[in-house]
Amino acid sequence: MKAAFYNGNKSITVQENAPVPPKAGEIQIQVAYAGLCGTDLHIYLGHMDKRVTFPQIMGHEMSGVVHAVGEGVTGFTVGDPVTVMPLHPCGECPACNAGHSHICQNLKFLGIETPGAFQSYWTVPAFTVLHLPKGLSLQHGALVEPLAVACHDVRLGEVKQGDYAVVLGGGPIGTLIALVAREAGAKVLVSEINPYRLELLAELGLETINPKEDSIVDRVQQATDGAGADIVFEVTSSAVGAELMTQLPRTRGRIVVVAIFSEPVKVDLHRFFWRELKLCGARVYEREDFQSAIDLAASGKLALDRIITGTYPLAEAEKGFQQMENGGKAMKILLSCS
Amino acid sequence: MKAAFYNGNKSITVQENAPVPPKAGEIQIQVAYAGLCGTDLHIYLGHMDKRVTFPQIMGHEMSGVVHAVGEGVTGFTVGDPVTVMPLHPCGECPACNAGHSHICQNLKFLGIETPGAFQSYWTVPAFTVLHLPKGLSLQHGALVEPLAVACHDVRLGEVKQGDYAVVLGGGPIGTLIALVAREAGAKVLVSEINPYRLELLAELGLETINPKEDSIVDRVQQATDGAGADIVFEVTSSAVGAELMTQLPRTRGRIVVVAIFSEPVKVDLHRFFWRELKLCGARVYEREDFQSAIDLAASGKLALDRIITGTYPLAEAEKGFQQMENGGKAMKILLSCS
Ligand SMILES: [Zn+2]
Ligand SMILES: [Zn+2]
Repeated sequence: MKAAFYNGNKSITVQENAPVPPKAGEIQIQVAYAGLCGTDLHIYLGHMDKRVTFPQIMGHEMSGVVHAVGEGVTGFTVGDPVTVMPLHPCGECPACNAGHSHICQNLKFLGIETPGAFQSYWTVPAFTVLHLPKGLSLQHGALVEPLAVACHDVRLGEVKQGDYAVVLGGGPIGTLIALVAREAGAKVLVSEINPYRLELLAELGLETINPKEDSIVDRVQQATDGAGADIVFEVTSSAVGAELMTQLPRTRGRIVVVAIFSEPVKVDLHRFFWRELKLCGARVYEREDFQSAIDLAASGKLALDRIITGTYPLAEAEKGFQQMENGGKAMKILLSCS
Repeated sequence: MKAAFYNGNKSITVQENAPVPPKAGEIQIQVAYAGLCGTDLHIYLGHMDKRVTFPQIMGHEMSGVVHAVGEGVTGFTVGDPVTVMPLHPCGECPACNAGHSHICQNLKFLGIETPGAFQSYWTVPAFTVLHLPKGLSLQHGALVEPLAVACHDVRLGEVKQGDYAVVLGGGPIGTLIALVAREAGAKVLVSEINPYRLELLAELGLETINPKEDSIVDRVQQATDGAGADIVFEVTSSAVGAELMTQLPRTRGRIVVVAIFSEPVKVDLHRFFWRELKLCGARVYEREDFQSAIDLAASGKLALDRIITGTYPLAEAEKGFQQMENGGKAMKILLSCS
C-alpha cells in the first residue's frame, strides 16, 4: 500500500509501505478520505520538527471502513464505516484522574506522536474508533474530527439561543464554529480578511465583516444596542485577534481561545476586570463532542459540501499542502487514500 | 465639621467643610472609621487625575452611625450602625439591564465620582447604606467594603471545599481573599515579597512563599502531586503575576483577575488552550457579597484586628497616605473621622 511521508523541510513523498496488521485491541481501517489540517500544515512547514520524528505519516481527520479487527475487539465488523477520535491518553496523570483525559498531560496524538491517516490502511486502538451512520458520505465523515473541535468550542462557550456570537477568523475551524453556534441558536458574525473565505461564508448565510475595511467594534456595538457580544471565539492566533477579543464582549461576556498562540501576546487584563469578562481555552474534544459532530454531520444541516474545496489523490498529497500554504482559494482539502 | 481634601500632586489638606443635609432618599452618616484603599493611594499619587475632579474628598471604606434621615427613607433610625456599598449605577445601561448593575457602564463610585467618606458627616443615597450588627465593632465595620471585594472574588472563583488556592499578592485585598477562601474550605498559599506582610500572613496561619526566594511553580507542583492549583487569584497587577497565573493551575483550573492592570501585559494564551484554563475578571461586589462580608466580619473568625496596622485621626490623613506610599510595615490603615 501507499503512505505519504513527511521528511522534513516541506518534503512529502508517497511511498510503498507495509500495512500494520491489527494486534489485540486494535482495528485496521481502510482509509477513504483524510483532511489536511492546520496542524498538518505546521508540520509540513517544519514548525513542529521538535515534536515530530520524521519520516512521519501525518493525518488525523479521516473516514474509512473497518478492514480487519484485532483480538478481543467487539462492536466492529469488517465493512463498517468509521472515523477516529485520534487521542491516546495515558490514563494515569492528574488530568486523566480528574476526568480530563482529552487533555492528558502525556497525551499521544495519533498522526503526530504516532503514524497517521495519510495511508491506505491505518491501524489504531479500537477505543479511538467511532461508527459513522450509513447515510453519511465518507467525504463528510472526514470532516467529523474538525467538526468535533467546533462542537467542543461551542459547548465550552455555553452558547445559548439568542446569543450574539463573534468568530474571529473564518478558516475551516472558525467556519465550523460559526455553523455549530448558529445551530445552537446564536446570531453569528464572522471576521475574516481572505476574500475567497468571505464569499464562501456569505454563501453559507453567515454575516461577515472584513476588519481591514470596517470597524468590527462599531458593528458589534450597533448590533447589540451598545451591550457587546455575548461570546467571542478567537481563532486567528494573531495579536489583533487577542486585542479584539477583549474589546467586543458585553459585561460578563465570554471568550473562547481556540487558536494556538505560539508565544505570549499582549492582553488587556484591565478589560477583564472592568467588564468581568470570562475566558476559557478549548482544546480538541471529548467523546460527547465527537458524537455531536457525527449527529450534526448526518443531519445534513451544515452544507458540508461547501466546506470541501477539493480532493487530491494520496499520491498528490504535496499539492494539497502547497495549495494550503499559498492560502487564497482554499477551505478544507481532502486526500483520497484508498 | 472637618473633611480631608485631595488637591492634586500628593497634597491632602484637612479643612472645615459644611455638612450636607440629607435630601429625600438620602442618609447622613456620622463617619466613625474610614479605610485607606489602594485606589485612594492611586488618587493621592496623581495617577487618577483624569478621572478625579479636585479638590476631592476621597474614601469609600467606612463605618458609622446614622445621623439624619432624609424624607421617604425607611428602615433606618438615628444611631443605627451602618456601612456603605459605594456604588451608584445608572439603572438604564445594557449592564444594568442584564443585572450587572455593580459594573454599570455609567457607574458612579462614591468617593471617586462623588464626595467620599474622609469627613465627619457623609451624605449618601439610602440604597447604598447597609446595617451593621450591634456586635460588630466599628473598626471592623470599616473593613466590610474590602472584605466584600474578597467575598466577590472567592464567589466568582467558585472556591470549593478541598480546593488548592494560590493568592498572588498578599496586600490587604489578597490577604482578605486568602482568609475568605480558607473559610470556604480551600487550602491557601499566598505569594508575597514584603517581609512585614509575609510575617503577618504566617501569623494568620496562612501558608506563604516569597517568589524571589523559592520557586512557586515547584511548591504548587509538589503540594498538588503534579496536578497544579485549582484556582489562582492574581492580585499583583505585575508582569510576573500575569506570567505565573497561567503556569500554576491544573487542567481546567481557574484564574481570577482581581488586580487592576494599567496597560495590556503579555499573557500565555497557549497555556489557556493547552490546559483548558478558565479566567474571569472580578470587580467590586454585589449586594450579596456585602451581606456575606458583614456576616463574616461579625462571626469573629477572621482575626480582623491583625489586618488593621494603625489608626490616624482624620486631621493626620496625609500621614496615613505617606505610610502607605512607603510600603513596608503596613496592611490596612484607618482614619478616625468623628
Ligand atoms: Zn493522562
Ligand atoms: Zn448602568
